[in-house]
Amino acid sequence: MTRYCATIQYDGTDFLGFQFQPKGRTVQGEIEATLKRVTQSEIRIDGAGRTDAGVHATGQVIAFSVEWRHSLADLQRALNATLPQDIIISCLKIVTDDFHPRFDALSRCYCYTIDNQFWPSVLQQRYAYHVKDKLDMVAMQSAARFLVGTHDFASFGKPTQGTSTIRQVMETDWKTDWKTDGNLLFFYIRANAFLYRMVRKIVGTLIQVGLGHLKVQDIQTILEAKDLKCSASLVPACGLCLVEVVYPE
Amino acid sequence: MTRYCATIQYDGTDFLGFQFQPKGRTVQGEIEATLKRVTQSEIRIDGAGRTDAGVHATGQVIAFSVEWRHSLADLQRALNATLPQDIIISCLKIVTDDFHPRFDALSRCYCYTIDNQFWPSVLQQRYAYHVKDKLDMVAMQSAARFLVGTHDFASFGKPTQGTSTIRQVMETDWKTDWKTDGNLLFFYIRANAFLYRMVRKIVGTLIQVGLGHLKVQDIQTILEAKDLKCSASLVPACGLCLVEVVYPE
Repeated sequence: MTRYCATIQYDGTDFLGFQFQPKGRTVQGEIEATLKRVTQSEIRIDGAGRTDAGVHATGQVIAFSVEWRHSLADLQRALNATLPQDIIISCLKIVTDDFHPRFDALSRCYCYTIDNQFWPSVLQQRYAYHVKDKLDMVAMQSAARFLVGTHDFASFGKPTQGTSTIRQVMETDWKTDWKTDGNLLFFYIRANAFLYRMVRKIVGTLIQVGLGHLKVQDIQTILEAKDLKCSASLVPACGLCLVEVVYPE
Repeated sequence: MTRYCATIQYDGTDFLGFQFQPKGRTVQGEIEATLKRVTQSEIRIDGAGRTDAGVHATGQVIAFSVEWRHSLADLQRALNATLPQDIIISCLKIVTDDFHPRFDALSRCYCYTIDNQFWPSVLQQRYAYHVKDKLDMVAMQSAARFLVGTHDFASFGKPTQGTSTIRQVMETDWKTDWKTDGNLLFFYIRANAFLYRMVRKIVGTLIQVGLGHLKVQDIQTILEAKDLKCSASLVPACGLCLVEVVYPE
């Protein structure tokens, strides 16, 4: 048995999420079914992050152990030829037997995309959340800086395992691009790990700052409250994308 | 009757093209059906360009004349609320009775998107053409410059009306963006008008330059040949988008 690490991309639109569920289409379910078809054996995969229903990924990382007598490139080609259209393995490597994509990860980076113009862009509706009122990017940028560092993020989510709500946010950034005349806003956030729905709660709260309903400094107050009820409501899954998982070396 | 000009966007994936056809879903057909539902009258629309099946638009322009007693904003809201998910009116204006979106246009600008990496990006597959071999952008940029000016483009397309194949290309540009690490290439081309499938023939030929199968100067030779058989084959519709139509004033 050899252990493989794969960087995968998926369009989350038509999935109930990453994690296998007995009923319904999941990323894990599709990949495990593909591995069974290609290798004729029952294989369980481990993922770096359990993205929710509708959340996309361009840099999700999975690992699995399998007996394969052909080349690494052959395995990647065979899997990509068998996977459904909305999942692709963009990189495949051999790793040590003890590699675990979740426990070995140093950090994860998510990007949340907002389509910020009065009428939504038709070509962005699968991948962006439409906010018609103009957002103040400078205010959202300043507010996001309060999140950087090791804090108790109880105001922004619940742990998916264990009880600690302390996480380390390494960086946050709001960006735009020339291609959409600044109408698409991208929020990047990197942390050692995230609480359940933490990015979507943070973005929901930052949008309130961008709309002028909250002041920049209110983010600090909300963070210190350590109370989930203090943050704003969740933004939709379609705007969220897991873009990178970082490992040692 | 008042004449209206609308800038519309559509995701071309599920359309047989812009122009009405008795069978099958078209952009014109959907908009005319929407106008009928909203205004209770049979209205014909005129479009600036008849995009092919699968071609997208973020800046198509249409015009129509209708009796409407409420505000302009109300008309736009009513139409957008009734249009299918994959069409939106992003701008609506009142124009003079003689305005024609096709005949009055000074120029059209198209953008063709190429996903240039070994494995395709899952999130781009509806809107980009995947080319796995690395393209030489500098060579494609230089080659595209030969097209700028007033030339006989018979090597790149047939006229949709009349017999002249002379068109004026005002500018061409290849761009990338930071967001995809330069893996997405955008080709912009503006002309007074285009021949049938001209942009897709041009991009197909420029790709041959980018792959090193043609030299930069070969574009000049192909242009001078005035023979459709001299250019490379068509690239797929999914990468093409009508981004702008320019009018006087």
